Amino acid sequence: MSTTSMRVSARRANFHDVRASNLGLIMRNVRLRGPSSRADLASVTGLNKATVSSLVTELIERRLLRESGSAFGNVGRPAVLLTVDTSYYAAIGIEVNVDYIALVAVDLDGNRLLSWRRSYTGFDVDPNRSIAAIAALTQRAMATMDVEGREVLALKVAVPGLVDAEGRVRHVRNLGWKGVDIAAALREVLGYPPYPIGVDNDANLGALAEHRFGSHAGTANLMYLTGEYDLGAGLIIGNYLHRGADGYAGEICHVPVTYEGEARQVGDVASIKSILQSLTGTNPSSVAEVEADLEEVLTRATQGDQETVHKLSAIGSSLGEALAAACDFLNPEVVILGGHYVPLAPWILPTAEKALQQRARALDATGVSVVVTSLDREVAALGAATGILNEIDAGSVPTPLGRAA
Amino acid sequence: MSTTSMRVSARRANFHDVRASNLGLIMRNVRLRGPSSRADLASVTGLNKATVSSLVTELIERRLLRESGSAFGNVGRPAVLLTVDTSYYAAIGIEVNVDYIALVAVDLDGNRLLSWRRSYTGFDVDPNRSIAAIAALTQRAMATMDVEGREVLALKVAVPGLVDAEGRVRHVRNLGWKGVDIAAALREVLGYPPYPIGVDNDANLGALAEHRFGSHAGTANLMYLTGEYDLGAGLIIGNYLHRGADGYAGEICHVPVTYEGEARQVGDVASIKSILQSLTGTNPSSVAEVEADLEEVLTRATQGDQETVHKLSAIGSSLGEALAAACDFLNPEVVILGGHYVPLAPWILPTAEKALQQRARALDATGVSVVVTSLDREVAALGAATGILNEIDAGSVPTPLGRAA
Repeated sequence: MSTTSMRVSARRANFHDVRASNLGLIMRNVRLRGPSSRADLASVTGLNKATVSSLVTELIERRLLRESGSAFGNVGRPAVLLTVDTSYYAAIGIEVNVDYIALVAVDLDGNRLLSWRRSYTGFDVDPNRSIAAIAALTQRAMATMDVEGREVLALKVAVPGLVDAEGRVRHVRNLGWKGVDIAAALREVLGYPPYPIGVDNDANLGALAEHRFGSHAGTANLMYLTGEYDLGAGLIIGNYLHRGADGYAGEICHVPVTYEGEARQVGDVASIKSILQSLTGTNPSSVAEVEADLEEVLTRATQGDQETVHKLSAIGSSLGEALAAACDFLNPEVVILGGHYVPLAPWILPTAEKALQQRARALDATGVSVVVTSLDREVAALGAATGILNEIDAGSVPTPLGRAA
Repeated sequence: MSTTSMRVSARRANFHDVRASNLGLIMRNVRLRGPSSRADLASVTGLNKATVSSLVTELIERRLLRESGSAFGNVGRPAVLLTVDTSYYAAIGIEVNVDYIALVAVDLDGNRLLSWRRSYTGFDVDPNRSIAAIAALTQRAMATMDVEGREVLALKVAVPGLVDAEGRVRHVRNLGWKGVDIAAALREVLGYPPYPIGVDNDANLGALAEHRFGSHAGTANLMYLTGEYDLGAGLIIGNYLHRGADGYAGEICHVPVTYEGEARQVGDVASIKSILQSLTGTNPSSVAEVEADLEEVLTRATQGDQETVHKLSAIGSSLGEALAAACDFLNPEVVILGGHYVPLAPWILPTAEKALQQRARALDATGVSVVVTSLDREVAALGAATGILNEIDAGSVPTPLGRAA
């Protein structure tokens, strides 16, 4: 057992890496602590004051921090306070689904600058039509940001399907996309804009939004279930998004469950698509039908229709069985349900929690909470924008246009 | 969406943290790179040379590094090379199971100093008897290390059951332990030795051993299945052991599978206990019976006994179904089978892999490898020792006895 057979897995740091990660460290500290002096930052980061001054100067030049007033201490000159510069950059997140496209733009502190949602019929359309629709919405957002004097930091697109580790869309079942390079296509249609364009899975991005902005922000281990047309899970593990070896982590659909005594897979029982099919007998094929079917189910449930309430409760139970397997495996602090699960929660959450508590082996101690999202709709679009902001914390700092890098 | 509502989740660094994490950084780099000069270390870590010199001086004083020869460069004086000091400390890992106790001692580079295994009947015995047995083996190891002039760095005990985040054993089914504070009991029986004593789950520790010393060392995402009497999984996610919110992550036993057409849970089909029960019709209750039953099954399988081969192949298929659910969820690079799965692999691995490939949704691209461990027996004991070594990489550096801290 010698060391020679081991792969060198530790990331090799070099000067550039160290500088970048220290820039990210300063940004993260200012973001989480609020207004801070250079001396505060030196104290909390353990970096020396000259280094902090140099990092702060660079971050101000890059339009990421700004000076904002002073704090008077006990002795000496008042200290200048630094805060996140929310005036210059905008991060744009877009969410494409079978029944809508949503766009969210945020400043560097996560305040919403734009929050748009438009209906859209994405069922099995030519991917070029979807790309044109995304591009049109993006151009409108770019124009608005331009008027406000803001630079677009990056654009990220959330899709309800498999995205590989390099950001290529491998498969989006209901949109009929297979092997489409959305980012490359968008770059072309948008005329090669100066900002980066990325793609990720909607559940992954939803989990990022919850981890930064949700009611359980900062929770080390959380699972987010999309509750859009198909069922997907995004996993935060140890405060990081877990993508897995090939970027496919969080595929929960195929977990075996029972439904009314029969062996099924959870995706065929408890996805929104399956819920609507089993409760209305139809197979929605346009946005109007998804929304109308959901409306009908909610009306029936609210009026106490026995069959509806019984079915929703049985579906909740199946969902809870799948959550038990997932929670035994991952032991998260919380499971957050998003999308269309939010209005359905009164009828599915109690049985889901009950099945989870009964089935999970390892939860005798503290248990896991199952909650609905506290975020507005467009969680995945917000998550896409969050993904862009997180890259700054990780040390990937932008250079404003018109300045040499 | 303001920042004020967010919990501050970033770890606050202070000077002591920074020093400790830099000490760990130097240790990790020397370990992974092999003999390195102070200048090499400054270059790869991005730390300045004075800081590196100071860190190295401290690590030499603490008996963690030593100088070992020189390298001649193109110009100037020859550079002194630093290497891990393997002569002073010993990390002791112990593994308790229903049918044996194993002890492994390693130096700071993971070279085995001791590797002991003794039969032991642990089924539902008084925990005090188990603690006495562990203590006796530990005392023998301590005496041997003492003769060699080595100091025991720490002792860690691997148990096949639930261990909470604070290292308390909550439940070990087959050993009949419930709420036992093994570490405290051992400290008392051993007369309060000067080194720390910890406890962790055997699957977690096995995963650590695989990640540092196995054939897939350094793989970012791997799952280790124990293959001892009961079935357990340890998860390495993003190069870290994932324990979950309460320390219970990796409970795979309750994943629903089919076995010969019937709905079952994987732990009731594919654990070693269940395999032996279904193939020999007995319920082993002593070490002699576990080993004898396994021997009998292997003999029958090797001779081509049709019922045995058929059942093992069906069990492999059920195991593969559970792995499919786990792999869809976690998307690891590799699944490693340990313990008694190793001799059984020729009959269960082919159907396990087939079921995994057929059932997993997200593996169309590259797939996951299922392999048997390349490590000797006592993987969990080695893992316990590995857990001790990993703490040094994380910046928890010991002070040799007889020196003030």
